[in-house]
Amino acid sequence: MKTMKNKGQLIVISGPSGCGKDTVVKEVLKTNKKAWLSISCTSRKIRPGDVDGKDYYFLTKEEFEDKIKRGEFLEYAKYSDNYYGTPKDAIEEKLNQGIDVILVIEIQGALKIKEQLKNTLFIFILPPSIKELKKRLENRNTETKEAITKRFQIAYKEINTVNKYNYVVINDIVEDAAKKVNSIIISEKCRVDLMDDEFINSLEEEIHEVLLEYDSTNK
Amino acid sequence: MKTMKNKGQLIVISGPSGCGKDTVVKEVLKTNKKAWLSISCTSRKIRPGDVDGKDYYFLTKEEFEDKIKRGEFLEYAKYSDNYYGTPKDAIEEKLNQGIDVILVIEIQGALKIKEQLKNTLFIFILPPSIKELKKRLENRNTETKEAITKRFQIAYKEINTVNKYNYVVINDIVEDAAKKVNSIIISEKCRVDLMDDEFINSLEEEIHEVLLEYDSTNK
Repeated sequence: MKTMKNKGQLIVISGPSGCGKDTVVKEVLKTNKKAWLSISCTSRKIRPGDVDGKDYYFLTKEEFEDKIKRGEFLEYAKYSDNYYGTPKDAIEEKLNQGIDVILVIEIQGALKIKEQLKNTLFIFILPPSIKELKKRLENRNTETKEAITKRFQIAYKEINTVNKYNYVVINDIVEDAAKKVNSIIISEKCRVDLMDDEFINSLEEEIHEVLLEYDSTNK
Repeated sequence: MKTMKNKGQLIVISGPSGCGKDTVVKEVLKTNKKAWLSISCTSRKIRPGDVDGKDYYFLTKEEFEDKIKRGEFLEYAKYSDNYYGTPKDAIEEKLNQGIDVILVIEIQGALKIKEQLKNTLFIFILPPSIKELKKRLENRNTETKEAITKRFQIAYKEINTVNKYNYVVINDIVEDAAKKVNSIIISEKCRVDLMDDEFINSLEEEIHEVLLEYDSTNK
Protein backbone atom coordinates (compact mmCIF):
# COMPACT_ATOMS: atom_id res chain seq x y z
CA MET A 1 0.00 0.00 0.00
CA LYS A 2 1.33 3.39 -0.98
CA THR A 3 0.16 5.91 1.53
CA MET A 4 1.42 9.44 2.01
CA LYS A 5 -1.80 11.13 2.90
CA ASN A 6 -0.90 12.27 6.40
CA LYS A 7 2.74 13.15 5.89
CA GLY A 8 4.13 16.45 4.72
CA GLN A 9 6.32 16.69 1.64
CA LEU A 10 10.03 17.46 1.94
CA ILE A 11 11.05 19.89 -0.82
CA VAL A 12 14.75 20.49 -1.43
CA ILE A 13 15.54 23.61 -3.43
CA SER A 14 19.06 23.96 -4.70
CA GLY A 15 21.16 25.38 -7.53
CA PRO A 16 24.44 27.13 -8.28
CA SER A 17 25.25 30.17 -6.13
CA GLY A 18 23.83 33.32 -7.67
CA CYS A 19 20.84 31.49 -9.21
CA GLY A 20 18.55 33.32 -6.77
CA LYS A 21 17.17 30.35 -4.84
CA ASP A 22 16.64 32.34 -1.63
CA THR A 23 14.71 35.07 -3.47
CA VAL A 24 12.57 32.50 -5.28
CA VAL A 25 11.73 30.71 -2.03
CA LYS A 26 10.83 33.99 -0.32
CA GLU A 27 8.34 34.56 -3.16
CA VAL A 28 7.10 30.94 -2.95
CA LEU A 29 6.24 31.40 0.72
CA LYS A 30 4.15 34.49 -0.06
CA THR A 31 1.62 32.29 -1.88
CA ASN A 32 2.19 28.97 -0.18
CA LYS A 33 1.12 29.56 3.40
CA LYS A 34 1.14 25.86 4.27
CA ALA A 35 4.84 25.19 3.80
CA TRP A 36 7.46 25.63 6.51
CA LEU A 37 10.97 26.87 5.74
CA SER A 38 13.71 24.93 7.48
CA ILE A 39 16.47 27.10 8.94
CA SER A 40 20.06 25.82 8.81
CA CYS A 41 22.61 25.90 11.60
CA THR A 42 26.02 27.46 11.19
CA SER A 43 29.12 28.03 13.28
CA ARG A 44 30.14 31.10 11.28
CA LYS A 45 30.15 34.44 13.09
CA ILE A 46 26.92 36.42 13.07
CA ARG A 47 27.20 39.40 10.66
CA PRO A 48 25.41 42.75 10.79
CA GLY A 49 21.90 42.20 9.45
CA ASP A 50 21.85 38.50 10.35
CA VAL A 51 18.92 37.42 12.49
CA ASP A 52 19.46 34.38 14.69
CA GLY A 53 16.70 31.85 14.04
CA LYS A 54 15.70 33.53 10.79
CA ASP A 55 18.78 33.52 8.58
CA TYR A 56 20.53 30.77 10.52
CA TYR A 57 20.69 29.28 13.96
CA PHE A 58 24.07 30.58 15.05
CA LEU A 59 26.04 28.08 17.14
CA THR A 60 29.58 27.96 18.49
CA LYS A 61 31.95 25.49 16.89
CA GLU A 62 31.69 23.33 20.02
CA GLU A 63 27.89 23.37 20.03
CA PHE A 64 27.89 22.42 16.35
CA GLU A 65 30.32 19.55 16.90
CA ASP A 66 28.22 18.26 19.80
CA LYS A 67 25.19 18.18 17.51
CA ILE A 68 27.22 16.28 14.90
CA LYS A 69 28.18 13.69 17.54
CA ARG A 70 24.55 13.30 18.59
CA GLY A 71 23.53 12.73 14.93
CA GLU A 72 21.26 15.75 14.89
CA PHE A 73 21.96 16.79 11.29
CA LEU A 74 20.36 15.50 8.12
CA GLU A 75 23.57 16.66 6.44
CA TYR A 76 26.37 19.07 7.27
CA ALA A 77 29.48 20.41 5.60
CA LYS A 78 32.43 22.63 6.37
CA TYR A 79 33.14 25.64 4.12
CA SER A 80 36.18 27.83 4.86
CA ASP A 81 36.42 26.58 8.44
CA ASN A 82 32.74 27.16 9.20
CA TYR A 83 30.16 24.45 9.66
CA TYR A 84 26.76 24.53 7.93
CA GLY A 85 24.13 21.91 8.66
CA THR A 86 20.47 20.94 8.36
CA PRO A 87 18.88 20.08 11.71
CA LYS A 88 16.93 16.83 11.49
CA ASP A 89 14.44 16.84 14.40
CA ALA A 90 12.42 19.94 13.48
CA ILE A 91 12.02 18.72 9.89
CA GLU A 92 10.79 15.29 10.93
CA GLU A 93 8.39 16.81 13.41
CA LYS A 94 6.82 19.09 10.79
CA LEU A 95 6.60 16.31 8.21
CA ASN A 96 4.88 14.04 10.75
CA GLN A 97 2.39 16.83 11.42
CA GLY A 98 1.54 16.79 7.70
CA ILE A 99 3.32 20.08 7.02
CA ASP A 100 5.42 20.53 3.86
CA VAL A 101 9.02 21.49 4.59
CA ILE A 102 11.15 23.57 2.23
CA LEU A 103 14.89 23.28 2.46
CA VAL A 104 17.15 25.71 0.59
CA ILE A 105 20.58 24.18 0.35
CA GLU A 106 23.81 24.04 -1.63
CA ILE A 107 24.12 21.35 -4.31
CA GLN A 108 26.52 19.10 -2.39
CA GLY A 109 24.26 19.08 0.66
CA ALA A 110 21.23 18.34 -1.52
CA LEU A 111 22.97 15.36 -3.07
CA LYS A 112 23.77 13.98 0.40
CA ILE A 113 20.08 14.21 1.31
CA LYS A 114 19.12 12.54 -1.95
CA GLU A 115 21.08 9.46 -0.93
CA GLN A 116 19.12 9.19 2.33
CA LEU A 117 15.54 10.22 1.71
CA LYS A 118 13.05 8.75 -0.72
CA ASN A 119 9.94 10.68 -1.77
CA THR A 120 11.76 13.98 -1.45
CA LEU A 121 11.07 16.53 -4.15
CA PHE A 122 14.30 17.93 -5.60
CA ILE A 123 14.06 21.21 -7.48
CA PHE A 124 17.05 22.78 -9.22
CA ILE A 125 17.04 26.54 -9.82
CA LEU A 126 19.00 27.82 -12.80
CA PRO A 127 19.83 31.37 -13.87
CA PRO A 128 18.35 32.30 -17.28
CA SER A 129 21.86 32.61 -18.69
CA ILE A 130 25.44 32.66 -17.48
CA LYS A 131 25.78 36.29 -18.55
CA GLU A 132 22.97 37.08 -16.10
CA LEU A 133 24.62 34.97 -13.36
CA LYS A 134 27.93 36.82 -13.92
CA LYS A 135 26.12 40.16 -13.68
CA ARG A 136 24.36 39.14 -10.47
CA LEU A 137 27.53 37.86 -8.79
CA GLU A 138 29.61 40.87 -9.85
CA ASN A 139 26.87 43.31 -8.77
CA ARG A 140 26.84 41.88 -5.27
CA ASN A 141 30.13 43.74 -4.79
CA THR A 142 30.82 41.63 -1.73
CA GLU A 143 33.37 39.31 -3.26
CA THR A 144 36.76 39.45 -4.88
CA LYS A 145 37.23 38.45 -8.50
CA GLU A 146 39.03 35.34 -7.25
CA ALA A 147 36.05 34.35 -5.14
CA ILE A 148 33.71 34.81 -8.11
CA THR A 149 36.05 32.80 -10.34
CA LYS A 150 35.96 30.05 -7.71
CA ARG A 151 32.14 30.13 -7.78
CA PHE A 152 32.14 29.69 -11.56
CA GLN A 153 34.59 26.80 -11.33
CA ILE A 154 32.24 25.12 -8.86
CA ALA A 155 29.19 25.93 -11.03
CA TYR A 156 30.93 24.34 -14.00
CA LYS A 157 31.37 21.11 -12.04
CA GLU A 158 27.94 21.18 -10.45
CA ILE A 159 25.63 22.15 -13.28
CA ASN A 160 25.44 18.60 -14.58
CA THR A 161 24.04 17.37 -11.29
CA VAL A 162 20.71 18.82 -12.47
CA ASN A 163 20.07 15.33 -13.84
CA LYS A 164 19.82 14.02 -10.28
CA TYR A 165 16.94 16.37 -9.53
CA ASN A 166 13.25 15.92 -10.36
CA TYR A 167 12.50 19.40 -11.66
CA VAL A 168 14.40 22.35 -13.06
CA VAL A 169 13.11 25.91 -12.80
CA ILE A 170 14.75 28.76 -14.68
CA ASN A 171 14.79 31.91 -12.57
CA ASP A 172 14.21 34.55 -15.21
CA ILE A 173 11.40 36.49 -13.50
CA VAL A 174 11.20 35.69 -9.78
CA GLU A 175 7.38 35.64 -9.69
CA ASP A 176 7.24 33.17 -12.59
CA ALA A 177 9.89 30.94 -11.05
CA ALA A 178 8.01 30.95 -7.73
CA LYS A 179 4.76 30.08 -9.52
CA LYS A 180 6.51 27.12 -11.13
CA VAL A 181 7.87 25.91 -7.80
CA ASN A 182 4.42 26.17 -6.22
CA SER A 183 2.89 24.33 -9.19
CA ILE A 184 5.43 21.54 -8.77
CA ILE A 185 4.53 21.26 -5.07
CA ILE A 186 0.79 21.11 -5.88
CA SER A 187 1.15 18.63 -8.73
CA GLU A 188 3.38 16.32 -6.69
CA LYS A 189 0.38 15.65 -4.45
CA CYS A 190 -1.64 14.50 -7.48
CA ARG A 191 0.85 11.89 -8.73
CA VAL A 192 -0.93 8.60 -9.30
CA ASP A 193 2.11 6.57 -8.30
CA LEU A 194 2.12 8.22 -4.87
CA MET A 195 -1.64 7.86 -4.47
CA ASP A 196 -3.21 6.18 -1.50
CA ASP A 197 -4.58 2.87 -2.82
CA GLU A 198 -7.07 2.83 0.02
CA PHE A 199 -8.88 5.79 -1.50
CA ILE A 200 -9.58 3.89 -4.73
CA ASN A 201 -10.60 0.80 -2.75
CA SER A 202 -13.07 2.85 -0.73
CA LEU A 203 -14.55 4.37 -3.93
CA GLU A 204 -14.97 0.87 -5.37
CA GLU A 205 -16.74 -0.28 -2.21
CA GLU A 206 -19.05 2.73 -2.32
CA ILE A 207 -19.94 2.07 -5.97
CA HIS A 208 -20.67 -1.53 -5.05
CA GLU A 209 -23.05 -0.34 -2.34
CA VAL A 210 -24.86 1.98 -4.76
CA LEU A 211 -25.26 -0.90 -7.22
CA LEU A 212 -26.70 -3.14 -4.48
CA GLU A 213 -29.10 -0.38 -3.46
CA TYR A 214 -30.31 0.11 -7.08
CA ASP A 215 -30.60 -3.64 -7.44
CA SER A 216 -32.82 -4.00 -4.34
CA THR A 217 -35.12 -1.12 -5.32
CA ASN A 218 -35.54 -2.64 -8.79
CA LYS A 219 -36.89 -5.90 -7.38
CA MET B 1 19.04 14.13 -26.83
CA LYS B 2 15.73 14.78 -25.16
CA THR B 3 14.17 17.82 -26.70
CA MET B 4 10.59 18.99 -26.39
CA LYS B 5 11.18 22.69 -26.35
CA ASN B 6 9.26 23.66 -29.46
CA LYS B 7 6.37 21.23 -29.27
CA GLY B 8 3.12 21.71 -27.42
CA GLN B 9 2.02 19.30 -24.73
CA LEU B 10 -0.93 16.96 -25.31
CA ILE B 11 -3.04 16.77 -22.15
CA VAL B 12 -5.70 14.07 -21.91
CA ILE B 13 -8.34 14.67 -19.25
CA SER B 14 -10.60 11.79 -18.43
CA GLY B 15 -12.62 10.18 -15.65
CA PRO B 16 -15.90 8.43 -14.92
CA SER B 17 -19.03 10.13 -16.21
CA GLY B 18 -20.39 12.56 -13.66
CA CYS B 19 -16.93 13.42 -12.30
CA GLY B 20 -17.26 16.90 -13.78
CA LYS B 21 -14.38 16.84 -16.23
CA ASP B 22 -16.02 19.28 -18.65
CA THR B 23 -16.69 21.80 -15.88
CA VAL B 24 -13.13 21.50 -14.57
CA VAL B 25 -11.67 22.05 -18.05
CA LYS B 26 -13.89 25.08 -18.62
CA GLU B 27 -12.41 26.52 -15.42
CA VAL B 28 -8.87 25.50 -16.45
CA LEU B 29 -9.20 27.46 -19.69
CA LYS B 30 -10.19 30.62 -17.80
CA THR B 31 -6.68 30.80 -16.32
CA ASN B 32 -4.68 28.97 -18.95
CA LYS B 33 -4.99 31.13 -22.03
CA LYS B 34 -2.28 29.26 -23.92
CA ALA B 35 -3.95 25.88 -24.16
CA TRP B 36 -6.28 24.87 -26.98
CA LEU B 37 -9.29 22.63 -26.38
CA SER B 38 -9.73 19.91 -28.99
CA ILE B 39 -13.33 19.43 -30.15
CA SER B 40 -14.54 15.90 -30.87
CA CYS B 41 -16.56 14.77 -33.86
CA THR B 42 -19.84 12.88 -33.51
CA SER B 43 -22.49 11.41 -35.76
CA ARG B 44 -25.22 11.81 -33.15
CA LYS B 45 -28.05 14.20 -33.92
CA ILE B 46 -27.57 17.81 -32.89
CA ARG B 47 -29.69 18.62 -29.82
CA PRO B 48 -31.22 21.92 -28.73
CA GLY B 49 -28.43 23.95 -27.12
CA ASP B 50 -25.65 22.13 -29.02
CA VAL B 51 -23.32 24.41 -30.96
CA ASP B 52 -21.61 22.87 -33.98
CA GLY B 53 -17.85 23.40 -33.70
CA LYS B 54 -18.08 24.19 -29.99
CA ASP B 55 -19.68 21.19 -28.31
CA TYR B 56 -18.88 18.83 -31.18
CA TYR B 57 -18.32 18.82 -34.88
CA PHE B 58 -21.57 17.26 -36.02
CA LEU B 59 -21.15 14.90 -38.99
CA THR B 60 -23.44 12.49 -40.77
CA LYS B 61 -22.79 8.79 -40.28
CA GLU B 62 -21.37 8.63 -43.83
CA GLU B 63 -19.06 11.60 -43.32
CA PHE B 64 -17.80 10.02 -40.08
CA GLU B 65 -17.17 6.66 -41.72
CA ASP B 66 -15.28 8.35 -44.58
CA LYS B 67 -13.01 10.01 -42.01
CA ILE B 68 -12.44 6.63 -40.34
CA LYS B 69 -11.41 5.17 -43.71
CA ARG B 70 -8.99 8.03 -44.29
CA GLY B 71 -7.42 7.46 -40.85
CA GLU B 72 -8.34 10.92 -39.65
CA PHE B 73 -9.08 9.97 -36.04
CA LEU B 74 -6.66 9.59 -33.16
CA GLU B 75 -9.30 7.29 -31.68
CA TYR B 76 -13.01 6.74 -32.17
CA ALA B 77 -15.76 4.63 -30.64
CA LYS B 78 -19.42 3.84 -31.17
CA TYR B 79 -21.85 4.37 -28.27
CA SER B 80 -25.54 3.49 -28.75
CA ASP B 81 -25.22 3.58 -32.54
CA ASN B 82 -23.49 6.97 -32.61
CA TYR B 83 -19.85 7.55 -33.47
CA TYR B 84 -17.58 9.74 -31.33
CA GLY B 85 -14.01 10.49 -32.40
CA THR B 86 -10.97 12.68 -31.88
CA PRO B 87 -9.78 14.35 -35.10
CA LYS B 88 -6.03 13.95 -35.53
CA ASP B 89 -4.90 16.72 -37.92
CA ALA B 90 -5.92 19.77 -35.89
CA ILE B 91 -4.23 18.37 -32.77
CA GLU B 92 -0.96 17.68 -34.57
CA GLU B 93 -1.01 21.10 -36.16
CA LYS B 94 -1.43 22.86 -32.81
CA LEU B 95 1.21 20.71 -31.10
CA ASN B 96 3.67 21.48 -33.91
CA GLN B 97 2.98 25.19 -33.41
CA GLY B 98 4.04 24.76 -29.77
CA ILE B 99 0.50 25.06 -28.45
CA ASP B 100 -0.70 22.81 -25.62
CA VAL B 101 -3.77 20.77 -26.55
CA ILE B 102 -6.37 19.64 -24.02
CA LEU B 103 -8.50 16.64 -24.85
CA VAL B 104 -11.52 15.75 -22.71
CA ILE B 105 -12.40 12.16 -23.40
CA GLU B 106 -14.03 9.02 -22.00
CA ILE B 107 -11.77 6.51 -20.26
CA GLN B 108 -11.79 3.91 -23.05
CA GLY B 109 -10.79 6.53 -25.63
CA ALA B 110 -8.03 7.81 -23.35
CA LEU B 111 -6.59 4.33 -22.96
CA LYS B 112 -6.50 3.91 -26.75
CA ILE B 113 -4.52 7.16 -27.02
CA LYS B 114 -2.19 6.02 -24.27
CA GLU B 115 -1.17 3.04 -26.39
CA GLN B 116 -0.21 5.34 -29.27
CA LEU B 117 1.30 8.52 -27.90
CA LYS B 118 4.31 8.93 -25.65
CA ASN B 119 4.90 12.13 -23.68
CA THR B 120 1.17 12.68 -23.30
CA LEU B 121 0.00 13.90 -19.93
CA PHE B 122 -2.88 11.78 -18.62
CA ILE B 123 -5.02 13.32 -15.88
CA PHE B 124 -7.83 11.39 -14.20
CA ILE B 125 -10.65 13.37 -12.57
CA LEU B 126 -12.46 11.74 -9.66
CA PRO B 127 -15.55 12.81 -7.76
CA PRO B 128 -14.88 13.50 -4.04
CA SER B 129 -17.12 10.57 -3.09
CA ILE B 130 -19.52 8.17 -4.74
CA LYS B 131 -22.41 9.67 -2.76
CA GLU B 132 -21.60 12.96 -4.47
CA LEU B 133 -21.38 11.26 -7.89
CA LYS B 134 -24.77 9.60 -7.30
CA LYS B 135 -26.29 12.94 -6.34
CA ARG B 136 -24.86 14.64 -9.42
CA LEU B 137 -26.05 11.92 -11.80
CA GLU B 138 -29.51 11.72 -10.22
CA ASN B 139 -29.86 15.52 -10.18
CA ARG B 140 -29.22 15.71 -13.91
CA ASN B 141 -32.79 14.37 -14.30
CA THR B 142 -32.01 13.48 -17.88
CA GLU B 143 -31.54 9.75 -17.43
CA THR B 144 -33.54 6.76 -16.29
CA LYS B 145 -32.54 4.81 -13.22
CA GLU B 146 -31.41 2.00 -15.53
CA ALA B 147 -29.10 4.36 -17.41
CA ILE B 148 -27.59 5.60 -14.14
CA THR B 149 -27.15 2.02 -12.91
CA LYS B 150 -25.36 1.29 -16.19
CA ARG B 151 -23.04 4.26 -15.58
CA PHE B 152 -22.17 2.97 -12.11
CA GLN B 153 -21.47 -0.50 -13.49
CA ILE B 154 -19.07 1.07 -15.99
CA ALA B 155 -17.52 3.29 -13.27
CA TYR B 156 -16.94 0.19 -11.13
CA LYS B 157 -15.00 -1.42 -13.98
CA GLU B 158 -13.14 1.72 -14.98
CA ILE B 159 -12.09 3.26 -11.70
CA ASN B 160 -9.03 1.02 -11.45
CA THR B 161 -7.68 2.35 -14.74
CA VAL B 162 -6.57 5.41 -12.74
CA ASN B 163 -3.29 3.53 -12.32
CA LYS B 164 -2.62 3.98 -16.04
CA TYR B 165 -2.75 7.76 -15.69
CA ASN B 166 -0.01 10.13 -14.51
CA TYR B 167 -2.06 12.31 -12.19
CA VAL B 168 -5.33 12.13 -10.31
CA VAL B 169 -7.33 15.21 -9.37
CA ILE B 170 -10.28 15.03 -7.00
CA ASN B 171 -13.03 17.37 -8.12
CA ASP B 172 -14.36 18.59 -4.81
CA ILE B 173 -14.37 22.33 -5.49
CA VAL B 174 -14.13 23.09 -9.21
CA GLU B 175 -11.75 26.05 -8.79
CA ASP B 176 -9.36 23.94 -6.70
CA ALA B 177 -9.47 21.06 -9.16
CA ALA B 178 -8.78 23.45 -12.05
CA LYS B 179 -5.85 24.96 -10.15
CA LYS B 180 -4.41 21.49 -9.68
CA VAL B 181 -4.78 20.68 -13.38
CA ASN B 182 -3.06 23.94 -14.33
CA SER B 183 -0.28 23.25 -11.81
CA ILE B 184 0.25 19.82 -13.34
CA ILE B 185 0.52 21.39 -16.81
CA ILE B 186 3.06 23.96 -15.56
CA SER B 187 5.15 21.47 -13.59
CA GLU B 188 5.26 19.02 -16.50
CA LYS B 189 7.32 21.59 -18.41
CA CYS B 190 9.88 21.63 -15.57
CA ARG B 191 10.52 17.88 -15.47
CA VAL B 192 14.26 17.23 -15.60
CA ASP B 193 13.80 14.00 -17.55
CA LEU B 194 12.05 15.91 -20.34
CA MET B 195 14.59 18.72 -20.28
CA ASP B 196 16.46 19.82 -23.36
CA ASP B 197 20.04 18.64 -22.81
CA GLU B 198 21.25 21.32 -25.20
CA PHE B 199 20.28 23.99 -22.69
CA ILE B 200 22.63 22.55 -20.06
CA ASN B 201 25.37 22.14 -22.67
CA SER B 202 25.03 25.78 -23.67
CA LEU B 203 25.22 26.89 -20.00
CA GLU B 204 28.39 24.83 -19.55
CA GLU B 205 29.93 26.44 -22.64
CA GLU B 206 29.04 29.90 -21.36
CA ILE B 207 30.61 29.19 -17.95
CA HIS B 208 33.71 27.97 -19.73
CA GLU B 209 33.90 31.25 -21.65
CA VAL B 210 33.55 33.28 -18.43
CA LEU B 211 36.35 31.27 -16.85
CA LEU B 212 38.60 31.89 -19.88
CA GLU B 213 37.78 35.60 -19.71
CA TYR B 214 38.64 35.79 -15.98
CA ASP B 215 41.78 33.77 -16.64
CA SER B 216 43.00 36.16 -19.36
CA THR B 217 42.33 39.29 -17.29
CA ASN B 218 44.21 37.76 -14.36
CA LYS B 219 47.37 37.32 -16.43
